[in-house]
Amino acid sequence: MRSPIRDYLDAVIRDTSDITSGKVSDDIPELARVDPDLVAVSLSTVTGTVYSSGDHEHQFSIQSMSKPFAYAMAIEDHGLDEVLNHVGVEPSGDPFNEFSLDERTAKPRNPMINAGAIATHGLIKSDHAPASDRLMDLYSQLTQRNVEIDESVVASEMAAGDRNLGLAYLLSAAGALHLNPPAAVAGYVRQCAAMMTVDDLALMAATLANGGVQPNTGNRIFSRATTKQVLSVMASCGMYDAAGDWMTSVGIPAKSGVAGGIIGVLPGQIGVAVFSPRLDHHGNSERGSEMMRLLSENLGLHLMTAGRPARSSLREVHTAQVDDEAATIYALQGDLSLSSIETLVHEITTNPPQDPLVVFDMTRIDEVLQVAHETASSLATTLIDQGHRVIFVDPTEAFADFRDEEGREVERWSPEELREHTSGS
Amino acid sequence: MRSPIRDYLDAVIRDTSDITSGKVSDDIPELARVDPDLVAVSLSTVTGTVYSSGDHEHQFSIQSMSKPFAYAMAIEDHGLDEVLNHVGVEPSGDPFNEFSLDERTAKPRNPMINAGAIATHGLIKSDHAPASDRLMDLYSQLTQRNVEIDESVVASEMAAGDRNLGLAYLLSAAGALHLNPPAAVAGYVRQCAAMMTVDDLALMAATLANGGVQPNTGNRIFSRATTKQVLSVMASCGMYDAAGDWMTSVGIPAKSGVAGGIIGVLPGQIGVAVFSPRLDHHGNSERGSEMMRLLSENLGLHLMTAGRPARSSLREVHTAQVDDEAATIYALQGDLSLSSIETLVHEITTNPPQDPLVVFDMTRIDEVLQVAHETASSLATTLIDQGHRVIFVDPTEAFADFRDEEGREVERWSPEELREHTSGS
Amino acid sequence: MRSPIRDYLDAVIRDTSDITSGKVSDDIPELARVDPDLVAVSLSTVTGTVYSSGDHEHQFSIQSMSKPFAYAMAIEDHGLDEVLNHVGVEPSGDPFNEFSLDERTAKPRNPMINAGAIATHGLIKSDHAPASDRLMDLYSQLTQRNVEIDESVVASEMAAGDRNLGLAYLLSAAGALHLNPPAAVAGYVRQCAAMMTVDDLALMAATLANGGVQPNTGNRIFSRATTKQVLSVMASCGMYDAAGDWMTSVGIPAKSGVAGGIIGVLPGQIGVAVFSPRLDHHGNSERGSEMMRLLSENLGLHLMTAGRPARSSLREVHTAQVDDEAATIYALQGDLSLSSIETLVHEITTNPPQDPLVVFDMTRIDEVLQVAHETASSLATTLIDQGHRVIFVDPTEAFADFRDEEGREVERWSPEELREHTSGS
Amino acid sequence: MRSPIRDYLDAVIRDTSDITSGKVSDDIPELARVDPDLVAVSLSTVTGTVYSSGDHEHQFSIQSMSKPFAYAMAIEDHGLDEVLNHVGVEPSGDPFNEFSLDERTAKPRNPMINAGAIATHGLIKSDHAPASDRLMDLYSQLTQRNVEIDESVVASEMAAGDRNLGLAYLLSAAGALHLNPPAAVAGYVRQCAAMMTVDDLALMAATLANGGVQPNTGNRIFSRATTKQVLSVMASCGMYDAAGDWMTSVGIPAKSGVAGGIIGVLPGQIGVAVFSPRLDHHGNSERGSEMMRLLSENLGLHLMTAGRPARSSLREVHTAQVDDEAATIYALQGDLSLSSIETLVHEITTNPPQDPLVVFDMTRIDEVLQVAHETASSLATTLIDQGHRVIFVDPTEAFADFRDEEGREVERWSPEELREHTSGS
Repeated sequence: MRSPIRDYLDAVIRDTSDITSGKVSDDIPELARVDPDLVAVSLSTVTGTVYSSGDHEHQFSIQSMSKPFAYAMAIEDHGLDEVLNHVGVEPSGDPFNEFSLDERTAKPRNPMINAGAIATHGLIKSDHAPASDRLMDLYSQLTQRNVEIDESVVASEMAAGDRNLGLAYLLSAAGALHLNPPAAVAGYVRQCAAMMTVDDLALMAATLANGGVQPNTGNRIFSRATTKQVLSVMASCGMYDAAGDWMTSVGIPAKSGVAGGIIGVLPGQIGVAVFSPRLDHHGNSERGSEMMRLLSENLGLHLMTAGRPARSSLREVHTAQVDDEAATIYALQGDLSLSSIETLVHEITTNPPQDPLVVFDMTRIDEVLQVAHETASSLATTLIDQGHRVIFVDPTEAFADFRDEEGREVERWSPEELREHTSGS
Repeated sequence: MRSPIRDYLDAVIRDTSDITSGKVSDDIPELARVDPDLVAVSLSTVTGTVYSSGDHEHQFSIQSMSKPFAYAMAIEDHGLDEVLNHVGVEPSGDPFNEFSLDERTAKPRNPMINAGAIATHGLIKSDHAPASDRLMDLYSQLTQRNVEIDESVVASEMAAGDRNLGLAYLLSAAGALHLNPPAAVAGYVRQCAAMMTVDDLALMAATLANGGVQPNTGNRIFSRATTKQVLSVMASCGMYDAAGDWMTSVGIPAKSGVAGGIIGVLPGQIGVAVFSPRLDHHGNSERGSEMMRLLSENLGLHLMTAGRPARSSLREVHTAQVDDEAATIYALQGDLSLSSIETLVHEITTNPPQDPLVVFDMTRIDEVLQVAHETASSLATTLIDQGHRVIFVDPTEAFADFRDEEGREVERWSPEELREHTSGS
Repeated sequence: MRSPIRDYLDAVIRDTSDITSGKVSDDIPELARVDPDLVAVSLSTVTGTVYSSGDHEHQFSIQSMSKPFAYAMAIEDHGLDEVLNHVGVEPSGDPFNEFSLDERTAKPRNPMINAGAIATHGLIKSDHAPASDRLMDLYSQLTQRNVEIDESVVASEMAAGDRNLGLAYLLSAAGALHLNPPAAVAGYVRQCAAMMTVDDLALMAATLANGGVQPNTGNRIFSRATTKQVLSVMASCGMYDAAGDWMTSVGIPAKSGVAGGIIGVLPGQIGVAVFSPRLDHHGNSERGSEMMRLLSENLGLHLMTAGRPARSSLREVHTAQVDDEAATIYALQGDLSLSSIETLVHEITTNPPQDPLVVFDMTRIDEVLQVAHETASSLATTLIDQGHRVIFVDPTEAFADFRDEEGREVERWSPEELREHTSGS
Repeated sequence: MRSPIRDYLDAVIRDTSDITSGKVSDDIPELARVDPDLVAVSLSTVTGTVYSSGDHEHQFSIQSMSKPFAYAMAIEDHGLDEVLNHVGVEPSGDPFNEFSLDERTAKPRNPMINAGAIATHGLIKSDHAPASDRLMDLYSQLTQRNVEIDESVVASEMAAGDRNLGLAYLLSAAGALHLNPPAAVAGYVRQCAAMMTVDDLALMAATLANGGVQPNTGNRIFSRATTKQVLSVMASCGMYDAAGDWMTSVGIPAKSGVAGGIIGVLPGQIGVAVFSPRLDHHGNSERGSEMMRLLSENLGLHLMTAGRPARSSLREVHTAQVDDEAATIYALQGDLSLSSIETLVHEITTNPPQDPLVVFDMTRIDEVLQVAHETASSLATTLIDQGHRVIFVDPTEAFADFRDEEGREVERWSPEELREHTSGS
């Protein structure tokens, strides 16, 4: 059975077919040879299901879409503070600022402009293997296939690489480059020349959406903190000098590449990738940008709307006889964040349980934020002090070391035990 | 029973008590008279429950935190396009740019800097009542109480108002102001002199978090689209010239006021407000910024982490006998966005129902995005074509005019009908 | 007999008659009513002879050409250091910088842009009379006639004065304005509305060329130091944002006004004024700029070429019998600057006088720079020590208190005495 | 006999001996090894006499003081228009702009900043010899000795040359460099590593002061037009980002070098050079700048004061019997510019000659500007038409092809003929 999501993506391609403005990049001769009418879109959920349409098997070079991933690798290598010492996080404001370092800090303004990306490439540890080899390995982990470099793209970019060499030498002069300039540029060009399909890129974006865990392999590639940093910088600086326009009209962290690709990430939900080689004057794919705008609008991806109310953590409250005692059973679900646990807290504080037993059924719980842990601890203390017997049903050990504020442990049952001990509801 | 969330907020105040740097604004004499040690924090869920700590009943002037709301009113009055013709959405990059209009567009760069805020105030319709009166009325709807202006703050700001007058006259000279300059400044100063508590502000922020609907009254104050625009601009331009730093370290749309307040919004979840009068060199509350950072970290508010996987729309699949026929019942829940409905689609396409009857139970459905509508329409067509009888249980009429792609209506039952017709599960 | 210089000026007008591009300023309604084909040129020597051609009796408002004179008055009132504390001397670089104060100093960048000119107007002492009255008095001294304000221009500019009010309020907010903003703007508008002919303006420019002394009345209006400062700032900042282009192509200190006038000064030689109402996009008279370029080229006014070798100070060396003694007589002429006196020094040091008497005939001497004074003192000592009798013929008392380095006076004769005592040559 | 000018220069060194602030450049290791207390000053007249004091035989590298001379060579090679197509003439305004090309023109802003100087070096023709060899040849012509490169400085600068390489690659990427970047930088570094004394530099500056003619050899090295352009650009852009401050306080075209030298030019009069290795934060010699300020003040070099009234062209009017006819003899002198000839015109037009013969004695005339030629032509026509016989005594052939406006030639005599024909005075 054909997926209607696939149908939807077909429609996105169809509905943007009249966009033939913009022109293929001629900065790099090899890129100029592409068929300008190629078009593709791909979408990957955080569970790793990929839907795509158009020329989704066509390979093109990742180019600047590599920057977020190289930035992530540098952070994993050195820690965030060290990387922030070398590359800033502020939008450049002006296309011409790309040439210059920040006046006050003498650092490149952010890792999404070329100067910052070259400095970032230079930060990647290369004791045991060149940074570009390590990045190919990273790409391969992210895409679950053996990613390769197109050497003709490398050769073409090196031949047309004066601008990157210029930036690299200026960085070096400012003490902001950890490799010699030609080596940094050569490595950076290889980083950009990896060949990808939109399906690959959607999966890479989905790994960022999924907090750094590759959806299919389950491997944690980047820490949550690194992922958060990368996505924040993509949101502020990813689409060059029109940050405010992109934030209002599309509203998701994104990064474009000069070959015509754009990736976008809705944290927690979806990674998307589009491809169309004709570029607007900012250097972003003209049709690709419109495809992104449509996806954002139709799929409700905009950051400022997508974060709909998290389901209440309180799935159900019921009373039952447990071991012949009256019990109030609170069944919880989902992530325990402050906003989600608040319903539970509100219920218990305004409508305290009357039964001697209080059971928290956490069978359906996913992640527990620290603040929820503390809130639960505080709740437990209150209930125990009021004479209740508190039981946690916590098979995923979300509350593994749980103690109340007085340091008292609570009783723990398995779901089976709860079922066995319960009679009637 | 005391709420543990209240305890948490107490801790936020306690843990930032060593921050006594920064200084109270002396731009406006009346503000300089405040007790610099006042401190408060308040948090409101999108269901309207407010938790607070510290001097949460202390009233102070809203100042620049009024800007998002005035911007929202201007958009509601004229439509977004017309407002964009007069005020941009790009971060200013530089504190000194506040004095100038954008070189290329001759518009103020965004509505969060003073020039843009004065232009925005001038856009608010004032045929029947002064803009400042209409804003007081708006504040009162948002806070559910009668908000008042502190005339001594008004007088003090007017006496120290040369900078605003200067901006207003420059705007007028550029044809970017719809009122005469002294009237625009007088109105803008009144807009800023409304007295608020952090509880009021948290509730105002929660209205933005709630897509424009006041959580307690349920009144729609701003459209979803207006709210999205306002939050986007807060995210890009709300915290002056350190947009990238704020996005990485705090990561939520926010706006500060010179009296020491900051509001922040996690779309779909929470509005927060903090207060501490000492300001850093950007003009943001020094302790307030740190309180915001703590709240973001501890409560998981960061945009790039908060958007955890929406619960699957597919709550449950079970089979039952309905009217003596075998039926597969898909129970849905929550918002039907693409990422949430995808689980359902995936299930049906990979594991098609074998029973002649297919029931979609939408009793627990909230909002339905357009793309989900289309996806469901496409699914229905496929199922009908395969010979299934499709029944919608849709008491909220989320799919009121639903037809499949061939234009065929589906059968509709109430939840009671479903229960009555069903035997066994 | 008709002056050929007048003919030359006729030719300048004739040779630029095909320049009809640019447009009359419509910033100020009253200015927009002018006949765009009016054209005039006038030239005044530092001896006060004025030559002109075209509509040289047509009166138009001085506008921004008033700025150098108001700046001079402020310096005379307060001293240069105090004025530099309030207004800088750097070119603004960018038309849009006019709106802003210098980032580092919070001062207007220079007195030739409007913000700086308004601040400068506010610096003029007005204890006994309004600054604009004092300026009319100044203009009258400079032009030798009773200069008057066109009140219709004042009214028109005040009605269209939002930009100036904006700048004035911003200056006031930054503590950089010594009057209340409306008063400063009202005064500044009067300063600009004085009615002038090109002949008036040429004479005003000639006063600057003449080191601050009005050529005809001989009254010192500005000190030499003030004049030097004013001309320096005109050279760097007078023609808005194309300082380098003006310096290379025209090469004289200049200032334009929005009514279509431009004044230019060749220090020590000439003041010029041109008039043609159509402006280029910088706000400078289009035809007027070309007339200035022609004048510079044809008259050799360019600063980098005009300063031809000063005539040697040594007019003649001859020997004669003076009181029956052999005497070497050095006849000097012109200004004694270092470069001009160097010929004398070179002659005496390489070819020392052999006669017992050494006479310096300073009858034709003009000004004596300090360094020349010292050089002469040193020369005298050497000659006296070598046994010469040194006589100064110094009727203008250029060397009034002259002593040699040992403190010895020299003998002094009048020209008549020299003639009487001399026999043969 | 010791020159008092030499004494004066001694005093300049003595009076600045307390200036020990600033620090020796450490950008280039070889430069850092200099004795920081070295100091020298030299002054050359346009007649080639050189006075100096201090370590005036110490050789140091010319560095950026080479820029005006390389710019002159490029203009001579290609013409001004072609050079202006590649390098602008506007001050950069900001030290950080040096990294970037002009936003609108994509050209380096001016030839005095490094980017512009490298582009300029690339413009010098090198078909027959490398540009740096041609520059050494130029330096040798200017200094009348065999100028050599310090290869250790070259090596040191190449080793520390990342910034220049960066600029060169960026220029190349923008299509603004006519050599490959490493070659351009290598050549530019050689251009800067020529070893000079202050005496050499003063003589080089004096050549610019002398309109492009080397004072001692009399060889024309640069055309008048080229020299004017170079001096104009030095005036606007020579002292980096404090153009206005330099123009007001020193007031002569100048250029500094990172080794501690500064050259300055008073057109038509003097070239100066100072040397002291400690630099201020602009990169200009700290003590050198003060020496220049003193020289300007004491020697009256400031452009806005130095151009004192040119001597009247009219040296003398007398009547005599020439060939038994009454004759009015006008003896002229100096340059015939408009301002200098004006006295003659004024005399003749207000006080027309009554004698049948009118003799213009041009024996002491130097240069004749075009406008003076025309003025004289017009004068002659008038006199002839009034019945006068007009005789030119013009031994230098300043008026070689002279005809009056009707095309009539005038009678020409040699000075001897005049003397012979004249009786009485």
